[in-house]
Amino acid sequence: MFDNKEKTDLEHLGEFGLIAHITKAVELTEKSTLKGIGDDAAVLDFSGKKTLVSTDLLLEGVHFDLRYVPLKHLGYKAVQVNLSDIYAMNGIASQVTFSIGLSSRFPLEAVEELYAGVLLACNAYNVDLVGGDTSTSQQGLIISVTSIGHAKEADIAYRHGAQEGDLVCVSGDLGGAYIGLQLLEREKRIFLENPNIQPDLEGKDYIIERQLKPEARKDIVQLLADIGIKPTAMIDISDGLASEILHICEASGKGCRLYEEKIPIDPMTYDTAREFGIDPTICALNGGEDYELLFTVSQADYDKIKSQPDISIIGHITEQAAGCELISKSGNVHPITAQGWNAFAKPQV
Amino acid sequence: MFDNKEKTDLEHLGEFGLIAHITKAVELTEKSTLKGIGDDAAVLDFSGKKTLVSTDLLLEGVHFDLRYVPLKHLGYKAVQVNLSDIYAMNGIASQVTFSIGLSSRFPLEAVEELYAGVLLACNAYNVDLVGGDTSTSQQGLIISVTSIGHAKEADIAYRHGAQEGDLVCVSGDLGGAYIGLQLLEREKRIFLENPNIQPDLEGKDYIIERQLKPEARKDIVQLLADIGIKPTAMIDISDGLASEILHICEASGKGCRLYEEKIPIDPMTYDTAREFGIDPTICALNGGEDYELLFTVSQADYDKIKSQPDISIIGHITEQAAGCELISKSGNVHPITAQGWNAFAKPQV
Repeated sequence: MFDNKEKTDLEHLGEFGLIAHITKAVELTEKSTLKGIGDDAAVLDFSGKKTLVSTDLLLEGVHFDLRYVPLKHLGYKAVQVNLSDIYAMNGIASQVTFSIGLSSRFPLEAVEELYAGVLLACNAYNVDLVGGDTSTSQQGLIISVTSIGHAKEADIAYRHGAQEGDLVCVSGDLGGAYIGLQLLEREKRIFLENPNIQPDLEGKDYIIERQLKPEARKDIVQLLADIGIKPTAMIDISDGLASEILHICEASGKGCRLYEEKIPIDPMTYDTAREFGIDPTICALNGGEDYELLFTVSQADYDKIKSQPDISIIGHITEQAAGCELISKSGNVHPITAQGWNAFAKPQV
Repeated sequence: MFDNKEKTDLEHLGEFGLIAHITKAVELTEKSTLKGIGDDAAVLDFSGKKTLVSTDLLLEGVHFDLRYVPLKHLGYKAVQVNLSDIYAMNGIASQVTFSIGLSSRFPLEAVEELYAGVLLACNAYNVDLVGGDTSTSQQGLIISVTSIGHAKEADIAYRHGAQEGDLVCVSGDLGGAYIGLQLLEREKRIFLENPNIQPDLEGKDYIIERQLKPEARKDIVQLLADIGIKPTAMIDISDGLASEILHICEASGKGCRLYEEKIPIDPMTYDTAREFGIDPTICALNGGEDYELLFTVSQADYDKIKSQPDISIIGHITEQAAGCELISKSGNVHPITAQGWNAFAKPQV
């Protein structure tokens, strides 16, 4: 199909590099396309309200391990992960399509479990499953989800709207999904070495649930509407706080100052990270899969946001030349660097 | 994850059986969902025009063989196959999302080839690529496409609208894509047995192109609008004429009579089928992948449609009790049965 000279290695290019490369050749020509590649969801103008569309691919052995992920949880999470992108536009998700490729090692009952999770997520979030595709797969389980949502044009929060002086806010707490994954991986290794030993996950429900059954923050979108706040920029945290704040700053042409002591970390996340000898702040910055919302609001909204128990103000937006910095608890200044997910890196086993 | 008693085999259930099974549990609750699972695309009401969404999954080793499918053609076809579903609603496609999972055996240049085909299709059909996902894959190439389009509510052609007496029409010609595939498979086998023998595809351009580079029939949707015809029912032919007409009849609660002599088959398709010892009519009925449009129109539209060179009238709709029948060239009556694609059947190698 293609010869082997002058090849560029995808592993070195990385996912973002590949997307940037592909995007260069994309031209938008349709009047109804307000926003294509480059944000959490595409924005399409079909008169009146805007249509939001987002899509994700989840592959066995890459995104999930069926040795410890129950299929029902997997279906639930696959939908949540994708809905999260619609909420990250400050929109409301209303439909999903769900496609699967699966081998004959899966009996119908397994597929039912998977879809039970899908429908549970749909029902809980008032979303209709409106389509999909099914296929045999010669290898592992393949899942593709597309979410469709809507928003008034004036309400849509892009990544590029952050202004100097804006407050940087985050919902919920961070790092739990990553440390939950470390726990599940550890117990898997112990189990593989000695199948008689049962997994020891007692008292770790919260972080296990953060990994296996994340909840997209529709409630935050509704809360912001209720208290009359339109975020100037917003993104969901799928790859870790560091990677996502850099996306906002880059798209907005700004810098930021975040304060380590303000980053919300649950005590169980904190303690378990310490058990593993990992810095809890690193879990929050680079762990990913928390599916919380990271957004910026005008300083004028400070009074509205300061008393919200589920929202933390973790810093502010600066001019671009000031860079993106984290002020540690001891007062040291560290540049923020992206160490998020590289889809083409070798698996970290 | 699940034990092994009381399992239902997916292979016996088949794709349609699985979809029917899954669909039973789906409830539509959103006001904006006009049509979910059960047609070529989902129809969503976002005020004014309706949004159409359709999605497909294409897997290496299942849907395509990279030993004879050039990547650029694959990208082009993956988009066409999915746009075809939007046109089959009598709508106009305006956006696609394109997701890929690929292993590190693919260099960047290969991905560029793939996307060159995607963008060629987008440009030729006035469609914007507005999103997607990229991931590493531990095995073969994985493609997921979602198309979004729009139509006025009154223009949308569902599968369920065929009325007794309506004319059954089909665009273009049928069976070519299937016989093109047989040719490519034969040359692959010869090449694998003796790599010194070059493929002999001379003079077979048309049927090879039908397989490798199908064109979705946007032009037919525009033609029907131009001549003032709204189809009473419409579907695209992805699985073969037999399977698709049965979908229309079942959804509409009707029967049909089709006439073998009226089924449009290109001379090259006819001759090559004969070379392979295959009945050309069987290629048209069960071959699939032609991506032509199959539709029904009121008899009152006969004068408008009869002189269209690219549309054939192949039969008419009857009452349900009369069944679905094919009248052979010799005048014999055969029941039409679906022998379309079963995604969970063992590969026919």
